[in-house]
Amino acid sequence: MFITFEGGEGTGKTTIIEKLTRQLQNENFQVVSTREPGGSSIAEQIRKVLLNPENKEITSRTEALLYAASRAQHLDEVVIPALNDNKIVLCDRYIDSSMAYQGYARELGEEFINKINVYALNYMPDLTIYIDLDTKIGQARINNNRKHKIDRLDLEDCSFHDKVRNGYLQIAKKDEKRIFIIDGNQTIDSIYSIIYNKVKTLI
Amino acid sequence: MFITFEGGEGTGKTTIIEKLTRQLQNENFQVVSTREPGGSSIAEQIRKVLLNPENKEITSRTEALLYAASRAQHLDEVVIPALNDNKIVLCDRYIDSSMAYQGYARELGEEFINKINVYALNYMPDLTIYIDLDTKIGQARINNNRKHKIDRLDLEDCSFHDKVRNGYLQIAKKDEKRIFIIDGNQTIDSIYSIIYNKVKTLI
Repeated sequence: MFITFEGGEGTGKTTIIEKLTRQLQNENFQVVSTREPGGSSIAEQIRKVLLNPENKEITSRTEALLYAASRAQHLDEVVIPALNDNKIVLCDRYIDSSMAYQGYARELGEEFINKINVYALNYMPDLTIYIDLDTKIGQARINNNRKHKIDRLDLEDCSFHDKVRNGYLQIAKKDEKRIFIIDGNQTIDSIYSIIYNKVKTLI
Repeated sequence: MFITFEGGEGTGKTTIIEKLTRQLQNENFQVVSTREPGGSSIAEQIRKVLLNPENKEITSRTEALLYAASRAQHLDEVVIPALNDNKIVLCDRYIDSSMAYQGYARELGEEFINKINVYALNYMPDLTIYIDLDTKIGQARINNNRKHKIDRLDLEDCSFHDKVRNGYLQIAKKDEKRIFIIDGNQTIDSIYSIIYNKVKTLI
């Protein structure tokens, strides 16, 4: 069972995944909780290049290819072995992030993203939770979170994050079976309980 | 004018490119001499991840995607601006390296390499010089070169480098118009003068 979590910044994905992992583990499910970009030594090295705020000259295509590289490594080292062991994999971001951020917001297009992610297309999630939230609310949450370390994508302006959201909504429309949309403008507790119930009906 | 240089390890590519750059510059041509993976700050950061001998767990697909990422960045930052300025670009390795090393030797196949390099396919070289050399001779040259720093690909065995050579020969057969094969089992001076004459007839 491969479940991915998608959304803009400040939607509470990370908190929710942590809570869900603990609860499922308490119920004796075998759960692997991981994230993109990263999740393995090589993938974390790639993440560093990607998120370093000093790397301003990274072009859109390079960015998309680095995410695809990190994804391929993470699939081989973390996701596929866990799925082969019949574990539940909860992954913070996956190919829909590339589609929303680079395909739509950076305007590289769907075809380019699909081509460079040809390997990941073999491992599509059973379920993708997309937390939809007004960009301004998400950004305000991030700015109020003192633990949040500014990364390269935080330097983008509001119109970029609006394009990301618009991208996610278009992707979700095209794949209604896989992608479950949740209104992020609720308390974390409400969002969590909707997600928990959705996941439980599936496993 | 975009000219790339291809071949296994120890074929003398780098020495030849340096000499050719100096000579063409002395003849008042505007020449940009560069290399892959690398040639810009971001691309060099990617090169470090790729060639670090400690990164043994890099999978074939990640390797191919990192080369494609480095290539896209290098195209946008170095190659395309120089071509737009009507300069001669001499580049040590390009997409044929990905095809020979990852497509053939790592057996990822032609289709995968072409898909992830879809951007580079828009900028194919006007001429590619492929220096063909018996793998054992190339490896012996490298081992005798004390200045050579061991990288991750040097850890591969002879059969890997034989597959790379076989890959290059197949690629060259498919694109005889673009790829000019030179027998690398001659003195560097002979190889150099053949290349110099070939390049001069073109520019």
